[in-house]
Amino acid sequence: MLDLNKTQILKLFNFREAVTLIQNAYVANAEGDVQTADVVHLGFPKTNGDCHIKSGHIEGTANYVIKIASGFYDNPSKGLASSNGIMLAFSATTGETVAILRDEGWLTDMRTAIGGALASRALARSNATAILIIGTGIQAKLQAQCLAKLMPERDLSFRVWGRTWLNAENAASELSKHGLNVLAVPVLDNEIRSADIIITTTPATAALFAEGLVSSGTHVTAIGADSPGKQELPVGLVTSASLRVCDIARQSLEHGEFQTASKSDASLAVTELGHVLSGTHGGRQSDDDISVVDLTGIAAQDIAITQAIIDAATSTDKN
Amino acid sequence: MLDLNKTQILKLFNFREAVTLIQNAYVANAEGDVQTADVVHLGFPKTNGDCHIKSGHIEGTANYVIKIASGFYDNPSKGLASSNGIMLAFSATTGETVAILRDEGWLTDMRTAIGGALASRALARSNATAILIIGTGIQAKLQAQCLAKLMPERDLSFRVWGRTWLNAENAASELSKHGLNVLAVPVLDNEIRSADIIITTTPATAALFAEGLVSSGTHVTAIGADSPGKQELPVGLVTSASLRVCDIARQSLEHGEFQTASKSDASLAVTELGHVLSGTHGGRQSDDDISVVDLTGIAAQDIAITQAIIDAATSTDKN
Repeated sequence: MLDLNKTQILKLFNFREAVTLIQNAYVANAEGDVQTADVVHLGFPKTNGDCHIKSGHIEGTANYVIKIASGFYDNPSKGLASSNGIMLAFSATTGETVAILRDEGWLTDMRTAIGGALASRALARSNATAILIIGTGIQAKLQAQCLAKLMPERDLSFRVWGRTWLNAENAASELSKHGLNVLAVPVLDNEIRSADIIITTTPATAALFAEGLVSSGTHVTAIGADSPGKQELPVGLVTSASLRVCDIARQSLEHGEFQTASKSDASLAVTELGHVLSGTHGGRQSDDDISVVDLTGIAAQDIAITQAIIDAATSTDKN
Repeated sequence: MLDLNKTQILKLFNFREAVTLIQNAYVANAEGDVQTADVVHLGFPKTNGDCHIKSGHIEGTANYVIKIASGFYDNPSKGLASSNGIMLAFSATTGETVAILRDEGWLTDMRTAIGGALASRALARSNATAILIIGTGIQAKLQAQCLAKLMPERDLSFRVWGRTWLNAENAASELSKHGLNVLAVPVLDNEIRSADIIITTTPATAALFAEGLVSSGTHVTAIGADSPGKQELPVGLVTSASLRVCDIARQSLEHGEFQTASKSDASLAVTELGHVLSGTHGGRQSDDDISVVDLTGIAAQDIAITQAIIDAATSTDKN
């Protein structure tokens, strides 16, 4: 049985392998080949915490995966991170424990960022280079880094905006150290107009910018909304978009970015990302299309990134 | 973080401590002080396996517990046990991982047996000494051993019956080595009539004996039925009993022993074991009562027995 801590996981992590497995996982999910259990939620109101359990299996693969992720929001005052998590893998043939990955939530952050980058690459114009990141947290930085890694051939320029100027400066400075061409920007509206790709990564509960600012041809990937009441984009942008794509329709319409738009239009049409990645759905049809992706996160991503670490550890063992 | 394997867990296990914590857990559960998430089920039809995830937290206690239990029924042909499992405990204050107990399902077997023994002791006549165990597997043996440990002052005699005579002989022989006064019996019906306590531990899907055989004053604890379609007792015994007790009403009526009886009587009255153990419900009213307990297993038991191991390990550390 593998038992790895975060340091060991970071050392084993191979970006390209993870991207391939996560891409395959989205396709499998859209094609109905992923068994995903309902998410378990435990709440701890007295200690300002909660815990989610996601679990599932991709048909035909070796292991099933159970992810336990918690957030205890008073932790920072104790010098601890709010988020915590472990991934567990079990043999789908014998039930034996295959791996305990004590990743402290890092694998979730990374699979989320890879998912967003895959979606942005798949749906943006082929000549898109101006990227606007809204938000300054871990996802803001990881989305930028993953997109840069996925599009090494393009001369990408990043802009970062956050409600707090200092945070935007710090995020830009950190990304710059990773070799990205990046600038913190103090005013959002003009940046919205000129971006080719907009990636939103905030916990907002209302639209971050006004309707009508997004130019034709822009692609938007919304990462932040993952529970009832959250919203980052103006409803009109979502309803008028040429194409709405999500990781899993049920989640997205119930508690993702598309929840607000689907309240006013119960028949809102959405396409699952796996169908775009597999080519079953043609994706963007013209350079003038506005495309919007909403990702709420699916167990298939957890399964894929866990398998990537297991594969890396196993091949290391063999060498 | 504690990381213990089965051998280490067995060494740390203290029966009395576990009994106390499990008894408290039943009371907390009946009083609404346990947060229990819906059970997650993953199925693996191609490999003849399944996995269940139970999770919860007892209000006011240090840790929440997640149990992952699997059954892969082709394992014995590979020289592996069918059942497997781990218990995970996390701080209900910070979310940090407190313990990984790789007990291979042993803690579940033990908490189930302690639950049955607590119920049998609480509801049988105070002068009950003749115990009939139906079934010859792990639960049959553990129920007998736990009941003997819980009633050291009584001169208990055990009888064991199973569909396969050799299995009954082997179970009796093993229990005898543990110091129990025990006899394997080849014919069931007369044993039903003369038992003071009957404990059923089989995966049966129809009544194991005919209606009308159970004498007045007998107590019955049914352990086997834990999913739709399972049944060990004649419906008439359940519906005519003076008292029906279960660990958790919803489970018992939906997929436990009481499921069949509740189909013919939707208003079937049941009492939760925690109320009997706390004294809120008076339990048996007369030596002529027939009482029936159905236990389907609750997360509170898992939480309690996990905490018992953590307590033992922590106090060992301190010594």
